[in-house]
Amino acid sequence: MQYNVPSMRIKIPTTKHREVLDITERLNDLARAQNFCEGLCHLFILHTTAAVTTADLDPGTDLDMIDAFTGMIPHRRYRHPHNPAHVGDHILSSLIGTSLTVPIVNGRLLLGAWQRVVLIELAGPREREMEVRFAS
Amino acid sequence: MQYNVPSMRIKIPTTKHREVLDITERLNDLARAQNFCEGLCHLFILHTTAAVTTADLDPGTDLDMIDAFTGMIPHRRYRHPHNPAHVGDHILSSLIGTSLTVPIVNGRLLLGAWQRVVLIELAGPREREMEVRFAS
Amino acid sequence: MQYNVPSMRIKIPTTKHREVLDITERLNDLARAQNFCEGLCHLFILHTTAAVTTADLDPGTDLDMIDAFTGMIPHRRYRHPHNPAHVGDHILSSLIGTSLTVPIVNGRLLLGAWQRVVLIELAGPREREMEVRFAS
Repeated sequence: MQYNVPSMRIKIPTTKHREVLDITERLNDLARAQNFCEGLCHLFILHTTAAVTTADLDPGTDLDMIDAFTGMIPHRRYRHPHNPAHVGDHILSSLIGTSLTVPIVNGRLLLGAWQRVVLIELAGPREREMEVRFAS
Repeated sequence: MQYNVPSMRIKIPTTKHREVLDITERLNDLARAQNFCEGLCHLFILHTTAAVTTADLDPGTDLDMIDAFTGMIPHRRYRHPHNPAHVGDHILSSLIGTSLTVPIVNGRLLLGAWQRVVLIELAGPREREMEVRFAS
Repeated sequence: MQYNVPSMRIKIPTTKHREVLDITERLNDLARAQNFCEGLCHLFILHTTAAVTTADLDPGTDLDMIDAFTGMIPHRRYRHPHNPAHVGDHILSSLIGTSLTVPIVNGRLLLGAWQRVVLIELAGPREREMEVRFAS
């Protein structure tokens, strides 16, 4: 077994309680810095109250997403001992997901016309950490 | 770094506003055409109003899925400037997900007895594009 | 094309109708048994009524997750011929997801402080099968 690329950890500061952050150009910069041209970009976020996915980011759509995700969580009497108010954050992280794999072509993420790679902050503001692996 | 396999783009025409399309055999055909036997199949859909996942497709379950996904999106006054009616489509795409990794064994996708790989169309009919990467 | 690692299938018995099972140490044991140190762990669950994701598992949070997921599925007249009561199980499996990719560092899954890899059982108790691939 041969290990192809160094592991990379990026730190992403968030500024609101809940927000959708476009991290596409951060990742493109990382691919360029690694001189990585063709393959796959594997993302993994090291948290239980944040998520990673792709999204449309027409103005206001980030706030629409936060509203919709918040509204989807049923109001229940939750058990979570640390802070029951965090239960919705944890559930959305598990549901939206913490890993994402995106193709790389010509040194950039291959995305649809309106598609962006986003970090979804569910319990900020905090500094979030994401592991990035380029694999060819 | 060595690039193992060519990138492949497939086009998938959809025929309804919302539908669940079984793409398993399309992917098996692609593995056969590439003479690809063992490894992983990475899928990525290049859109913000479609998704890729696995599903049970007993007759009628595709329509059940569409009903349930549609019913999960809260009714809010959304901001999206292009077309607020699209907000639910975008949110479901981000939530269900746009990347999927499936093992390949003996030249075919490794799936459970009733499990199929599906494209979920949320704002069709359109021609959708999916990037397919086989990695060993 | 070169195939790096053998395919591994693990069996995970579940004990309840719906539950969240921590499989992190099972996977760490598997990495150790394979002498696998650095790379990625690709997981795929071979079922349509189970899912795999990451989660916070503070005491009670597993039950909170099950409550919330159950409460999110709209009550509709579903069509599924085998057993309409299963529709929610299938939808949650497709929505939470059946594939997950986690980095491996120093022979162990790289996770956040409170983050665990979990199998979500939606129609147990059963013995579940998961395909595990380590890729470097």
